[in-house]
Amino acid sequence: MCGIIGIFNQPEAATLAYLGLYALQHRGQETGGIVTSHEGQLHTFNGMGYVADIFSGDVLSRLPGNNAIGHVRYSTSGDSNIRNCQPFTINYSRGYLSVAHNGNIVNAARLRAEFEAHGAIFQSTMDTEVILHLLAASKKDDLVDRLKDVLPQLKGAYCLVFLTESRMIAVRDPHGFRPLVLGKKADGYIIASETSALDLIEAKYVRALLPGEIVVFDQKGMSSYQLNGAKKKAHCIFEYVYFARPDSIVFDRNVYEIRKGFGRMLAKEHPIEADMVVPVPDSGVPAAIGYSEESGLPFQMGLVRNHYVGRTFIEPEQAIRHFGVKVKINPVKDLMVGKRIILIDDSIVRGTTSKKIIKMVRDAGASEVHMRISSPPTGWPCFYGIDTPTRKELIASQKSVKEICEFIGADSLSYLSQESLYWFEKQKPGEWFCDACFTGNYPEGDEEIQKAIQV
Amino acid sequence: MCGIIGIFNQPEAATLAYLGLYALQHRGQETGGIVTSHEGQLHTFNGMGYVADIFSGDVLSRLPGNNAIGHVRYSTSGDSNIRNCQPFTINYSRGYLSVAHNGNIVNAARLRAEFEAHGAIFQSTMDTEVILHLLAASKKDDLVDRLKDVLPQLKGAYCLVFLTESRMIAVRDPHGFRPLVLGKKADGYIIASETSALDLIEAKYVRALLPGEIVVFDQKGMSSYQLNGAKKKAHCIFEYVYFARPDSIVFDRNVYEIRKGFGRMLAKEHPIEADMVVPVPDSGVPAAIGYSEESGLPFQMGLVRNHYVGRTFIEPEQAIRHFGVKVKINPVKDLMVGKRIILIDDSIVRGTTSKKIIKMVRDAGASEVHMRISSPPTGWPCFYGIDTPTRKELIASQKSVKEICEFIGADSLSYLSQESLYWFEKQKPGEWFCDACFTGNYPEGDEEIQKAIQV
Amino acid sequence: MCGIIGIFNQPEAATLAYLGLYALQHRGQETGGIVTSHEGQLHTFNGMGYVADIFSGDVLSRLPGNNAIGHVRYSTSGDSNIRNCQPFTINYSRGYLSVAHNGNIVNAARLRAEFEAHGAIFQSTMDTEVILHLLAASKKDDLVDRLKDVLPQLKGAYCLVFLTESRMIAVRDPHGFRPLVLGKKADGYIIASETSALDLIEAKYVRALLPGEIVVFDQKGMSSYQLNGAKKKAHCIFEYVYFARPDSIVFDRNVYEIRKGFGRMLAKEHPIEADMVVPVPDSGVPAAIGYSEESGLPFQMGLVRNHYVGRTFIEPEQAIRHFGVKVKINPVKDLMVGKRIILIDDSIVRGTTSKKIIKMVRDAGASEVHMRISSPPTGWPCFYGIDTPTRKELIASQKSVKEICEFIGADSLSYLSQESLYWFEKQKPGEWFCDACFTGNYPEGDEEIQKAIQV
Amino acid sequence: MCGIIGIFNQPEAATLAYLGLYALQHRGQETGGIVTSHEGQLHTFNGMGYVADIFSGDVLSRLPGNNAIGHVRYSTSGDSNIRNCQPFTINYSRGYLSVAHNGNIVNAARLRAEFEAHGAIFQSTMDTEVILHLLAASKKDDLVDRLKDVLPQLKGAYCLVFLTESRMIAVRDPHGFRPLVLGKKADGYIIASETSALDLIEAKYVRALLPGEIVVFDQKGMSSYQLNGAKKKAHCIFEYVYFARPDSIVFDRNVYEIRKGFGRMLAKEHPIEADMVVPVPDSGVPAAIGYSEESGLPFQMGLVRNHYVGRTFIEPEQAIRHFGVKVKINPVKDLMVGKRIILIDDSIVRGTTSKKIIKMVRDAGASEVHMRISSPPTGWPCFYGIDTPTRKELIASQKSVKEICEFIGADSLSYLSQESLYWFEKQKPGEWFCDACFTGNYPEGDEEIQKAIQV
Repeated sequence: MCGIIGIFNQPEAATLAYLGLYALQHRGQETGGIVTSHEGQLHTFNGMGYVADIFSGDVLSRLPGNNAIGHVRYSTSGDSNIRNCQPFTINYSRGYLSVAHNGNIVNAARLRAEFEAHGAIFQSTMDTEVILHLLAASKKDDLVDRLKDVLPQLKGAYCLVFLTESRMIAVRDPHGFRPLVLGKKADGYIIASETSALDLIEAKYVRALLPGEIVVFDQKGMSSYQLNGAKKKAHCIFEYVYFARPDSIVFDRNVYEIRKGFGRMLAKEHPIEADMVVPVPDSGVPAAIGYSEESGLPFQMGLVRNHYVGRTFIEPEQAIRHFGVKVKINPVKDLMVGKRIILIDDSIVRGTTSKKIIKMVRDAGASEVHMRISSPPTGWPCFYGIDTPTRKELIASQKSVKEICEFIGADSLSYLSQESLYWFEKQKPGEWFCDACFTGNYPEGDEEIQKAIQV
Repeated sequence: MCGIIGIFNQPEAATLAYLGLYALQHRGQETGGIVTSHEGQLHTFNGMGYVADIFSGDVLSRLPGNNAIGHVRYSTSGDSNIRNCQPFTINYSRGYLSVAHNGNIVNAARLRAEFEAHGAIFQSTMDTEVILHLLAASKKDDLVDRLKDVLPQLKGAYCLVFLTESRMIAVRDPHGFRPLVLGKKADGYIIASETSALDLIEAKYVRALLPGEIVVFDQKGMSSYQLNGAKKKAHCIFEYVYFARPDSIVFDRNVYEIRKGFGRMLAKEHPIEADMVVPVPDSGVPAAIGYSEESGLPFQMGLVRNHYVGRTFIEPEQAIRHFGVKVKINPVKDLMVGKRIILIDDSIVRGTTSKKIIKMVRDAGASEVHMRISSPPTGWPCFYGIDTPTRKELIASQKSVKEICEFIGADSLSYLSQESLYWFEKQKPGEWFCDACFTGNYPEGDEEIQKAIQV
Repeated sequence: MCGIIGIFNQPEAATLAYLGLYALQHRGQETGGIVTSHEGQLHTFNGMGYVADIFSGDVLSRLPGNNAIGHVRYSTSGDSNIRNCQPFTINYSRGYLSVAHNGNIVNAARLRAEFEAHGAIFQSTMDTEVILHLLAASKKDDLVDRLKDVLPQLKGAYCLVFLTESRMIAVRDPHGFRPLVLGKKADGYIIASETSALDLIEAKYVRALLPGEIVVFDQKGMSSYQLNGAKKKAHCIFEYVYFARPDSIVFDRNVYEIRKGFGRMLAKEHPIEADMVVPVPDSGVPAAIGYSEESGLPFQMGLVRNHYVGRTFIEPEQAIRHFGVKVKINPVKDLMVGKRIILIDDSIVRGTTSKKIIKMVRDAGASEVHMRISSPPTGWPCFYGIDTPTRKELIASQKSVKEICEFIGADSLSYLSQESLYWFEKQKPGEWFCDACFTGNYPEGDEEIQKAIQV
Repeated sequence: MCGIIGIFNQPEAATLAYLGLYALQHRGQETGGIVTSHEGQLHTFNGMGYVADIFSGDVLSRLPGNNAIGHVRYSTSGDSNIRNCQPFTINYSRGYLSVAHNGNIVNAARLRAEFEAHGAIFQSTMDTEVILHLLAASKKDDLVDRLKDVLPQLKGAYCLVFLTESRMIAVRDPHGFRPLVLGKKADGYIIASETSALDLIEAKYVRALLPGEIVVFDQKGMSSYQLNGAKKKAHCIFEYVYFARPDSIVFDRNVYEIRKGFGRMLAKEHPIEADMVVPVPDSGVPAAIGYSEESGLPFQMGLVRNHYVGRTFIEPEQAIRHFGVKVKINPVKDLMVGKRIILIDDSIVRGTTSKKIIKMVRDAGASEVHMRISSPPTGWPCFYGIDTPTRKELIASQKSVKEICEFIGADSLSYLSQESLYWFEKQKPGEWFCDACFTGNYPEGDEEIQKAIQV
């Protein structure tokens, strides 16, 4: 997953981009980068790690200009090197072009192969580079026309912010897989993956970009275009389940409220006698509050999160049991001794972390541990930008709920049903979400995806 | 405030000390240090910042040996330089001696002046150095005898862990101001400020050190001594209110449960009609849960904390309102619009942060904001190791509750009463706490303190 | 200027490459990089600054494999950023391809414009990237065929070392502008800009690569090909004058001996009565020894060089006279007081440094300062890889020798004549050098160069 | 060995101190530090490594004030940690006191033991800390009186620069072992180990401090005092042989001229038929020039030094022969093939480096290698500040000249005689030098030294 930001026509654009990225840090912690434009030049700084560590005042002062785009990145494969940092900047016949991308292009490999067959060279392993090749190769003149020409060739998810010497352009794919919002600050404009980035820099939330919308910012202000070929909406339901910040407005709704609703529905569907409801922090908190409200069982912060987790952690050779979980959370033992605990988490991926947490809760003295998951079983990989393991590694694709329950060592395990997932849908019928991770129904690129899954 | 750790007779002692410090990171983020003993040599590494950043695998490999002591430090004054790092190591007539100290010596300035008058030299500005001068100057032979000889001259709070070429010695002052616990891991022993450090390294919690106890670890195992001159217990109540981790056992009780009790009592004493109870994260969470339980009003995580806060933060020149608070927390606006909010925080120091948070909650749309503090007004500085501002800067020493309410901009403000603070006391009568920060009754060194306060 | 190294079929190839680059550090101090191939993967590490600072043991251990290429770079323009680091690695239809380049392609801009017109994108501002585009676009199958197909399109100077997953290929341009040598170490092969790199890693010097030669190293060993279209030899005379190390064999001759000969000829052509001969260290030393031998005047190390010069130097605001020179050299005053000094330097570029040194020598007490330059006046910019200023900035293109003498403040100034420059030539008639920097006769790309000079 | 600098009453004192230390870098490369005084506060920055790497513009800007002292240090033992950095600053009854020390106190261990017996504590392992203890313990009032009271208790070599909140004080021991000079720059004063530091910062050389002189700089200007108990002069002859920079004036004479004289005398005493004279760079250069002049044999820079040597160097596992020497120097082979070489070096310590260099010269093709050393055999350790190995490790104390010649593999070996060492003495009779390293006649602290040597 990634987070992107764009700042147009604001003094200290780099500093605002940096703050915006900081607010989007949960969307990617591997690399961070900012590009600014100033007097016909682009200025770049990229680094590995947290935004707050990469950018010092000194670095920001070397990124002059009133326009900036930025990117934070979480990479799935071992391919997390500095070459794959974004924003990604190239030189082509029309000058400089820099881009930050959130999403994943399903047909990138095929497009790339075609380019290479014609002698093109690639510097990174990112699908984003294919987009730039397409743009550079387009016969159209203006960049907006090139975008209209080129983007329909892409299958998959993309929110893009481009920066040239004089313009900033934001694009959201026609399905609207990933969130992208528009904000306003004084005479300037802000583009961000989530509204929480607008909050920190005191920009006003204007609206979400429309699926298939191209928004151009230049000296004349803002103008909007629509890509040809409207497609069915396919907002990523997993942004609600796990990815987005609870204080963000995503797809026009507040994430915290949606998650609390997941918890309430979960309590309705899968009640159980117990002494307390405990979230796996921090992502399980709103659902646990909802579960507690609906069930009447007391909510307790029974697992305490350590806030000082660094990038790497040195483990002693004399292995400590479930070390990886232990450096992040620790149980409040006195609270749990002899008690029946309902643990709330947002999802189970491989099952190994859940297994460790349940063991930890039992070691703390809990008499019963009932796992409740605030989404349906995650049985299918995402091909639209979320870094999920292969289908084989997804425990829900390999085991029944009963078998998963045994594997993780819970006394009971229940998932939210597909119907209850859309508890909020009734309010706005006709809207549609991508829930391929739960259903295997991929709204786009099915051919490529089926091939990829079989591997 | 500081956190200390001691590891005796354990392979990879430095790595265990590092993990212990990591679990105690909330007690100090300015500097971190570890000293190990190995084959008659002490090995040291100190640094500025977070433990996870200071210690790499490479650094730990240069700290050999089975015994280690460690320290994390939060400094109050501008005096946060590397010279003041601990553990602090000296050479004296008996060889090497290293020490890590949590607490504050009230009569250090006078003792230091006496030493300087006799020609002694000091390298740091820390009170801890005075203890080492006293120990070196003692006419007794063995270090334990020197400790018995010297420590009664000290007024104030001290938990100490010493390391020599062959021994580790832990000491807690006769009042027992600060927590210090003993753990066991295989054939080795652990000393730590809080039990959460034992949890991470899988040591068993044995017991708290007694006030005035000296525990010696050497080749023969562990032996315990008692300082002459028992004093009245004076456990720091603020460890319960704010400082310790909720998952720790401090002064024989679980901190989370104590804090929830504060919240329940607060609800009983200061009920108010409202739509929800929202904690100031993270310290206000347990009390808010308690308040919610007692009042029946729903608990909501209405303020979201950003987990990626780095050491320094670059603020744009075009100032962002209440920036300092904003980089740490952000409100869930949709939750708050038109709602009456009860905000729960553990204490108010200067009042400026509360003012910013309340403004932020109002800006998010709250119709009413009622502040509830889970401790009495903090009207007096601490002289026993917690870094509080001067009396003048403590808003509760300058203003009435009504005036504070106005200053912070709340619709109502209530503090927990002194009686309710000790809701848990009935269970173990006769025990006594230091609550000088609320009452001005300093259990020791009153003369020095009165002088210091007047300045 | 740049230095390149290639290691084939040697254990610890990265470490050998690093040592080789260290021996070539004088050819470029801005950036350094190494790429290794191992099990079908390329591994890269680049950095800014000195080789000894960029590569730690830790870094080298992350560069596995028996084959490696490396590069050190000195950039002329302000364009010294990490993107322009070499070796430069791409992905194209045949897999990975990495290259290190020493030289300069005169017609790169035109080739680049053609590619961009057809939609290609560029990541760097280096001419080297054009070569890779040409190679990727070639219709030939094998890389060697592609090289034969593509290289004749290039005008200018290029020594190249390529690395793929399984092969290493070295190429020298048909003019043979820059030096490139072949060495042997056990079962492996070494390619290097100068023989001093072979010395440090204990490789045997085999021979120089021929102009227009392509040498391929693979599992079967070494094989050699020749580019079509032989051209007249055009070895860079400035390698002898200044660039190469005195302990290197360049163009089949020892640099130290050549330089001493320059000094001897200079003494013959331009004798003068004086008390001593003093070199501008270190490049002027061999010529000064030659001058001293021929003239019979004593050689003195009257200017002492400081060996600890770092990358950047902080100058006080209260400016120190000719600071830039002073941090590098300091006169032995007692030696110079009242004496007539012959100063020997290899060349004068802008004249400003000579002016400062002469002033320094006068301030030290010299009664006369006679400047002798061991090459003809440098009146023309280099377009084949040496970073010289524009023609306008070259003092010898703007002023007569007499005017230069006045400008630098010498009592007399003489340059080596064009004839004497080739004192060693008689031994091997028919050989030809590029001395465009002295004559303006550019052996290749004259059209492009004339255009560039006019700007 | 160490280098010290003091700047009084000059704007940008820290920057001048930094430049001064840079010019003294050859006297110590392990640590560097600067302390400034400003508005009653001392400001410190210490680091490991080269001055140019430790001090950035940013660091220097955090060292305000018009007075500064600085130190560079080369440590002998493994004890090169940051705690032993200088300047060393303490707090005592009179406030702050910082000191930089060049030299070695012979009776430090005994003085330290006495202090420790009385309960004093030490932070470092440096003899310098003993001086501060003595000063703090003195019953005298003013610091100058304390110095007069305390310094006569010290045996050994010390050049000291002290800094307090308002004064700078420089002291040279009564024997005058180490050099220390006074300079003037505008209204300010400079103290430095060598005059080359004055040159860089454009201060005028005034004079050397007298043995036993105390110079005080304060608001009233400069005043001078003399320690009681004049002692015989004992200037370190090794400063001439090796340590000082050739461009410095040391003990009132120019080092370059002295060294050339050593070479001339060496040629007179130990002539040999040969083809050339080659110095071991850089320390052997002036003596080699002198040898060449006297003998009439040509001087050649046959060994080329690499200027980019970093702090640490990664050696391949497949060991390279005499690697340590090879990364520093490389022979000009063509010059040496079949030639008889006279190698000039300043001294032989353990003999291992000479052995490697001679092997290297033979491998380069030399037919004969004659080693000539421009000082007598170094048979005794220095106890006055130069880091020499123990007597046992000094090859000249264990072997005859003939045996050394065999060990290093030379065709012949000769040392300068004791008489010729003082070739310059005739000009100023009555002056006396410490040549204990050659003779074993220790001018002070013989009792302690004899004990130390026996160990």
